[in-house]
Amino acid sequence: MGPQQLTIDAAMTRALQLAARGPAYGPNPRVGCVLLAPADDTVPVSEGAAPDALDPRPRTVLAEGYHQGAGTPHAEAAALADARDRGVGVRGATAVVTLEPCAHTGRTGPCADALVAAGVAQVVHAVDDPNPLARGGAAVLRAAGVRVVRGLRAAEGAALLHVWLTAVRRGTPYVTLKTATTLDGFVAAEDGTSRWITGSEARAHAHRVRAAVDAIAVGTGTVRADDPALTARVTGHDGVERLAEHQPLRVVVGHGGIPPRSRLRGDGGPLLHLPTHDVAEVLRALAAREVRHVLVEGGPTLATALLAAGAVDELHAYVAPALLGAGRRAVGDLGVRTMADVRRFRTVEVRRVGDDVLMVSRSVR
Amino acid sequence: MGPQQLTIDAAMTRALQLAARGPAYGPNPRVGCVLLAPADDTVPVSEGAAPDALDPRPRTVLAEGYHQGAGTPHAEAAALADARDRGVGVRGATAVVTLEPCAHTGRTGPCADALVAAGVAQVVHAVDDPNPLARGGAAVLRAAGVRVVRGLRAAEGAALLHVWLTAVRRGTPYVTLKTATTLDGFVAAEDGTSRWITGSEARAHAHRVRAAVDAIAVGTGTVRADDPALTARVTGHDGVERLAEHQPLRVVVGHGGIPPRSRLRGDGGPLLHLPTHDVAEVLRALAAREVRHVLVEGGPTLATALLAAGAVDELHAYVAPALLGAGRRAVGDLGVRTMADVRRFRTVEVRRVGDDVLMVSRSVR
Repeated sequence: MGPQQLTIDAAMTRALQLAARGPAYGPNPRVGCVLLAPADDTVPVSEGAAPDALDPRPRTVLAEGYHQGAGTPHAEAAALADARDRGVGVRGATAVVTLEPCAHTGRTGPCADALVAAGVAQVVHAVDDPNPLARGGAAVLRAAGVRVVRGLRAAEGAALLHVWLTAVRRGTPYVTLKTATTLDGFVAAEDGTSRWITGSEARAHAHRVRAAVDAIAVGTGTVRADDPALTARVTGHDGVERLAEHQPLRVVVGHGGIPPRSRLRGDGGPLLHLPTHDVAEVLRALAAREVRHVLVEGGPTLATALLAAGAVDELHAYVAPALLGAGRRAVGDLGVRTMADVRRFRTVEVRRVGDDVLMVSRSVR
Repeated sequence: MGPQQLTIDAAMTRALQLAARGPAYGPNPRVGCVLLAPADDTVPVSEGAAPDALDPRPRTVLAEGYHQGAGTPHAEAAALADARDRGVGVRGATAVVTLEPCAHTGRTGPCADALVAAGVAQVVHAVDDPNPLARGGAAVLRAAGVRVVRGLRAAEGAALLHVWLTAVRRGTPYVTLKTATTLDGFVAAEDGTSRWITGSEARAHAHRVRAAVDAIAVGTGTVRADDPALTARVTGHDGVERLAEHQPLRVVVGHGGIPPRSRLRGDGGPLLHLPTHDVAEVLRALAAREVRHVLVEGGPTLATALLAAGAVDELHAYVAPALLGAGRRAVGDLGVRTMADVRRFRTVEVRRVGDDVLMVSRSVR
């Protein structure tokens, strides 16, 4: 990396790429950081640069880092450590970071203080920290005489952190509802059989989603009917299916019991039984466990309760090119009687997975 | 075009492109034809050509043509006319054509005879003609001493003619069932309102499909409930909606009447009322009118009858990112009680149209 030169804007692109390497699950956001040397004043500002643009001169990349999950260093600390490992000084440097540096001592010390102590002269960040416990880093930096520029590539930064930002701003987990239906909206035939409505590629995709969330929730009816394991499984190049490295919390909602021989009690994430039908209570219980993203996989009672409460942020609808004509539905009565009251979502992605389609959409607020 | 040189293989690519310019509707197939000069023996066959490959030498393009719909010249006749217009001779030429030349006097004379009379020495075609009335052209040509090579790019030729070939081989129209539903499979809310489940881009796409079929069919229940016009409408660059050039036959199936003030009686294609619930009778009646492709737009009674009879060749499922929880369904009871009996289709296209998705799938025979 020694001689690499990047503008501040290009360094933010790099920081966003680094951030995306971090885990999507966990209580902390994905953040990337690039440390740039002070600008070389012998390099003229290129003509045609907008007068209010960030200084467009390329600068030498000193170090970089990203957050690899709770309990590991924050991105800024990782970048400062990278600089120490390389034996490069960072006095007068610019830190380009995807999220406002924290001002909070949690599992690690505050990043704002670490940047000040290292002698960083300028911090450019994309997204302001909404976390009531951690925010205020920009003020700390400014008070220490560090120049702070906020909002560079803010939309891209916010898109990367959409789930985390939504959960942290609101104080309750981001709720993704997954369905796997026929084209006529059934999750199972009349006799309850449902294997398999969607194909193996769609099911493999759904397991990759499981491995990226903090929790999976189902109702007790689904536990009794389907005996799901609620594990994230991946198939290796050897064709053997095994548990993914990260296993989400397994959450069962409802007053029913969990049978002693349930697959939920086998290998996988921790098991949490919430004997309630109160949606707000469920979300509070998950928030208290630092769950930022919960994937709801049914059944209809739980899905309908969440939809009726307006608590579903995102739909993952896997749709198979098949018709049943009759059977069990993914969603029950929502109290909608006329088109004016339809629950509409906004499409963010349409993806063909094998013979099925995955339609990802988000609630319209 | 004068100096253009193409190999026989490249000429077939060109012929397929020409064929696709013809109308998708109408009783006749879309066919393209390129006439190539005799090979120049001074040009050596390139090394490395497979010994059984078609002569890989490039030849001068003499003329080309395609079929523009019933009542206009067939592709071969159009290409011969093009040669006459250009004043070029075609004696000893190779005709590269996407479908076997016909041996049938219909609205125009047999193409096989026309090619023989013109002195064409070789005919290379992609797809054999399955039409019992028109086939046999290859035999006519061979009997007259013309070399015939069949099956070049046969899969591409068959893909272009999929709908027509299916209809002609079977003797009944190709049936496409269109649905426009929420993610939970409803075509209307409980009170019957359905405007609009899908967005304007999906509806515009559906009108382009209407303009490419021979007939649109609905049941009498839909006529009474929705009063559809069943016209193909297009919106011009001026933003004004008008009738498309081609208007499909409007078919109403069932014993109910068509109200005198129905929009079906307004501008648009001819109106055909088939007072029956017998699927085979409907298909025979349409075949007798040379309908190759019928688009069924509902309602549930007609859709269910066709699906139950195994008469649906293709599904066009427009799915909106919306949930109703209750309402009217696209398809009624198909007699399926367990997953083993699910009606499964094979996906051929997934396309995002605005905020909706169109899933095109075909029946698994």
